[in-house]
Amino acid sequence: MSEQALSTFDRAREALDKKTRYVQDFPEKGVLFEDLTPVLGDAESFVAVVDAMAEAAEKLNAEIIGGLDARGFLLGSAVAYKLGLGVLAIRKKGKLPPPVVTQEYELEYGTAALELPSEGIDIAGKNIVLIDDVLATGGTLGAARKLIESCDGHVSGYVLAIEVPGLGGRDNLGDRPVIVVRDPQ
Amino acid sequence: MSEQALSTFDRAREALDKKTRYVQDFPEKGVLFEDLTPVLGDAESFVAVVDAMAEAAEKLNAEIIGGLDARGFLLGSAVAYKLGLGVLAIRKKGKLPPPVVTQEYELEYGTAALELPSEGIDIAGKNIVLIDDVLATGGTLGAARKLIESCDGHVSGYVLAIEVPGLGGRDNLGDRPVIVVRDPQ
Repeated sequence: MSEQALSTFDRAREALDKKTRYVQDFPEKGVLFEDLTPVLGDAESFVAVVDAMAEAAEKLNAEIIGGLDARGFLLGSAVAYKLGLGVLAIRKKGKLPPPVVTQEYELEYGTAALELPSEGIDIAGKNIVLIDDVLATGGTLGAARKLIESCDGHVSGYVLAIEVPGLGGRDNLGDRPVIVVRDPQ
Repeated sequence: MSEQALSTFDRAREALDKKTRYVQDFPEKGVLFEDLTPVLGDAESFVAVVDAMAEAAEKLNAEIIGGLDARGFLLGSAVAYKLGLGVLAIRKKGKLPPPVVTQEYELEYGTAALELPSEGIDIAGKNIVLIDDVLATGGTLGAARKLIESCDGHVSGYVLAIEVPGLGGRDNLGDRPVIVVRDPQ
């Protein structure tokens, strides 16, 4: 297929297929970790993935891009810039100075929490598209949605580069559209 | 001054002055924390700061943008995209799957480390501009430079949004140009 005929998503899928680094047994035995660092470090691949994710976020009527700490920052920031939007940094607990709004969530072992500043930013009534690199269990993304809704923001959808099948991730995301750049594996 | 006459840096400085959130005694007593989350969450301010940092990175002949985990990702990713470059995610210890290259550095209390993948990315001979939100002690940025040089990359300079004066940050950065968007306070 000629370069022009390739859609934005095709180019992004090619980049992900070519540059993703696969590492067995990380962070624990039995997990195949998909490291996108080489995708982002390569100009052509990085631009291709950002372009596809921006196209998806625009379809979801994004007014602000929500980036998940920390790998979601690496994609969400560029997508926000391309669309001329702000990027909402959804931080892990303790990273932001008080006062903050906090949303706890269950992990496989124990709990974690996400936070937003409770001053200086007003997301009430805004359409927020949440961006991260991978949809796995969906726990973090689900918590991010609750956090945003607790600040009267509206999550109009999720855009991810890749998805790990079989972990029930989409069940945690509620009735919002989920767009994943790479085809399910 | 009319909108057109304002330089890229003037617009960015206005955005930082207007939107930065100041919080006393965070992360510890006596520290005035400057939270840029509201700057990034506002479309106009975010674009203004990214444009200024991209202008600076271009002056420093960037071939790749190095973003420091995690707030450096929020700026470095957009700057890289604007310049059509890749973004090198310089991660905190343990976040990347092996094999990795590690650079330890001293903290006020204890040590920390930064890591890069030792496969899948080739930065040998490349001009890398390091981007973070704040220049404080310069410890993390100095370690990032050593890490990149250990992979035969070349740090052609640093671009920061703001600088905390009086912490000797520049002493840690070696003989490379440092561009800070906001005027020294």
